[in-house]
Amino acid sequence: MEELDRQEILEDVSYLIEAKQAPKLRAIMLDAHPADIADLLVHLEGEHRHYLFDSLDLHTAADAILEVDESTRRELIQACDEHRLSVLVETMNSDDAADFVSELPPELAAKILKQIEPRESAEVRQLLAHEEDTAGGIMALELVAVDQERTVGEAINEIRKKAEEIETINHVYVVDNSRRLVGMVHLKQLILAEAYTPLSEIMNRDVISVQVGTDQEEVAKLVRKYDLLSVPVVDAQGRLAGRITYDDIVDVIQEEAQEDLARVAGVDENEEPREVSIFRICRLRLPWLIIGLIGEIIAAAVLTNFSTALDKVITLVFFIPIITAMGGNAGIQASAIVVRGLATGEIDFSDTLRRLGKEFRIAILNGFLCGLIIFIIVALGWKNPAIGLLIAASLTVVIMSASVVGGTVPLALKRFNVDPAIAIGPFITISNDILGLLIYMWIAMLFLDYL
Amino acid sequence: MEELDRQEILEDVSYLIEAKQAPKLRAIMLDAHPADIADLLVHLEGEHRHYLFDSLDLHTAADAILEVDESTRRELIQACDEHRLSVLVETMNSDDAADFVSELPPELAAKILKQIEPRESAEVRQLLAHEEDTAGGIMALELVAVDQERTVGEAINEIRKKAEEIETINHVYVVDNSRRLVGMVHLKQLILAEAYTPLSEIMNRDVISVQVGTDQEEVAKLVRKYDLLSVPVVDAQGRLAGRITYDDIVDVIQEEAQEDLARVAGVDENEEPREVSIFRICRLRLPWLIIGLIGEIIAAAVLTNFSTALDKVITLVFFIPIITAMGGNAGIQASAIVVRGLATGEIDFSDTLRRLGKEFRIAILNGFLCGLIIFIIVALGWKNPAIGLLIAASLTVVIMSASVVGGTVPLALKRFNVDPAIAIGPFITISNDILGLLIYMWIAMLFLDYL
Repeated sequence: MEELDRQEILEDVSYLIEAKQAPKLRAIMLDAHPADIADLLVHLEGEHRHYLFDSLDLHTAADAILEVDESTRRELIQACDEHRLSVLVETMNSDDAADFVSELPPELAAKILKQIEPRESAEVRQLLAHEEDTAGGIMALELVAVDQERTVGEAINEIRKKAEEIETINHVYVVDNSRRLVGMVHLKQLILAEAYTPLSEIMNRDVISVQVGTDQEEVAKLVRKYDLLSVPVVDAQGRLAGRITYDDIVDVIQEEAQEDLARVAGVDENEEPREVSIFRICRLRLPWLIIGLIGEIIAAAVLTNFSTALDKVITLVFFIPIITAMGGNAGIQASAIVVRGLATGEIDFSDTLRRLGKEFRIAILNGFLCGLIIFIIVALGWKNPAIGLLIAASLTVVIMSASVVGGTVPLALKRFNVDPAIAIGPFITISNDILGLLIYMWIAMLFLDYL
Repeated sequence: MEELDRQEILEDVSYLIEAKQAPKLRAIMLDAHPADIADLLVHLEGEHRHYLFDSLDLHTAADAILEVDESTRRELIQACDEHRLSVLVETMNSDDAADFVSELPPELAAKILKQIEPRESAEVRQLLAHEEDTAGGIMALELVAVDQERTVGEAINEIRKKAEEIETINHVYVVDNSRRLVGMVHLKQLILAEAYTPLSEIMNRDVISVQVGTDQEEVAKLVRKYDLLSVPVVDAQGRLAGRITYDDIVDVIQEEAQEDLARVAGVDENEEPREVSIFRICRLRLPWLIIGLIGEIIAAAVLTNFSTALDKVITLVFFIPIITAMGGNAGIQASAIVVRGLATGEIDFSDTLRRLGKEFRIAILNGFLCGLIIFIIVALGWKNPAIGLLIAASLTVVIMSASVVGGTVPLALKRFNVDPAIAIGPFITISNDILGLLIYMWIAMLFLDYL
């Protein structure tokens, strides 16, 4: 929704809310897309938000509450009675229901799971048993599975039977009599084939499937690499357990990208743009700031150790920010490219040595050029060619060391199964600040007598 | 492909290449997924790479060359003669062919466009006329469009006719007699309906479509928001011009995420992890380094202006990195969350004032806490409570100013249609470095007589 449209619609909706026109609101919202209704819910405040939500019919309410951001959802849930929550959960797809229940306070979740239909409750419990970030954690149980002995006509009948319950159907999964996945048929193939054709004749046998325990990032990688529309999920015995559709994968890709950006920026990925509690945000941001603070206190200790040199040649002080900032920049450049390569699979451990050599050569060239620039500027601007030379030499070495650190740390982190993206964030800045200052001061000590 | 598997397969393939077993290679590769073959091509070197590529059949070769990274593709193209390139282009879908041709050197591209089938050539030219980053630039012309007067049975016949040419069919687009888009029917609906049902009876009329000129980022936003499987593209008159499928959107989302990460890290998004030319990488990275260098030279000038104070109280020097680093961290935190909110649509201009107030309150709290920590550490570790107080006060003010700058600059950039993500990168670090040092030095001057 464009901003202007939204503003107008918000005004109209607020007018209807003030006039307590619930039936009219419900009728209008029946024609709107749940994502747009979610947008309205997010932008309305307090009582208005609740009035609109309460006026929605069940299906629309269930779709909309899944689409709003977490803090709005928390608020809507708090104002909902248990009965309505139960009916909402019953209306949802198994995967959405499981996600929704997992966000509820544990006591409330237990109550809701008791109140909803036993079959529904069993499905949600089954899905909740999987880790949140795995294929099992994001899969849905709703799918069309047909025995391999059946024909195209029988598969179409099965689709007809399930059409009401399952909104998105693009494939029929073909299984053997132990429900092991043996093939997949796209609807296009069903349409093109004759009704009496056995499924086994037209099915695609090279099915790319994942295990329930597969990491969701791995699933996203497969989807991207092989352009998959949906991914069947199997258990340890190869039996069909569920399926993941492309829209859930789009969410995963988005989530992972935001996670990377959050790591790089040193923020918590759970901080939401519309979060209202200042304390909550402070609590999420403070740890990263304190990490930075501790790192830079070490940097301060390093400088304290060289206070005689700094006191003697005060000009050295002016270029401290250049050394730290440029080390940081070069290090981040080197690590960002490795993190990206690791994410797409274009780089792996076997490249470590090659990578190191490459970063070294890049850094020699760019370090030298930056050194040359700073030499000229210091020699002319500060009328001090000797210090210019010292700073140019330091900058070159700092850029080289920072690039090598930046290029190899993410590989090492990946080796130890730590998310390499954290290497681009505050950690690499801090270590390059400390290392850079040490290098700068050591080189300064070497030349101190000539300054 | 897992790394170990790939290593083994690479050895087997290399063995067959050494033995000049082209027919055998071709047969094996017919069963492999193009993405896996692309993987092999990327990891083979020089002659081996070309031998494998030359041994592939046309369809496989066309699919594989589209999947490899840009620098591998450049190399494969250089070794290909014009005739083979033409046939490869003819084998591709219109959107892939256009992308491929756009990457060729202009002279070669013109030659290829003359050599291929006139109809194919016209299609590619038509697509190349659109801006690269727009819906028109990523859409394909291959789609199934049926007149609204037709029936389900006739639509199925149309699918049958086009099934060979179009690999991915999930929807039939319904048009009026001027080819204006009036509806969409998913294959599931076709399967469920009777053959004689008019399409107009079952089609979805609330179609979300985009204009040829719509920015691809906007298209990705719509796909994410409304969970679309494919997006029809229309011209200014509302006539169906093409369609964008979910796999292309997944690529766009991935690309945009990488672009954001690149902006944040101060690297060029066109630097590829497997790029071999050191000079090319240096050229891409140097401008960002020079931006940093210029910014920090300004910071050095600021410090030079306050050299008397620094010379008098050398302890002030030790905490310069704390001031710059913490200002940077707090600024990046504030900007990252705004950039994310802008990307998902959760934040817009109307939030500017509220955002400013929020960042201010967060910064007061976190700034005060960081200030308290640094006061205790400087008072105890450097045995200098007076300087501790000065640094604590400076740090608090710097965190506050950096947070406000970080939280509002992305909004201002967005206002002027500049990508807000650049705000998280070197620019914000530089401005916060300069601003932070100014604040630090001003506060130091105020208290200089008491130190």
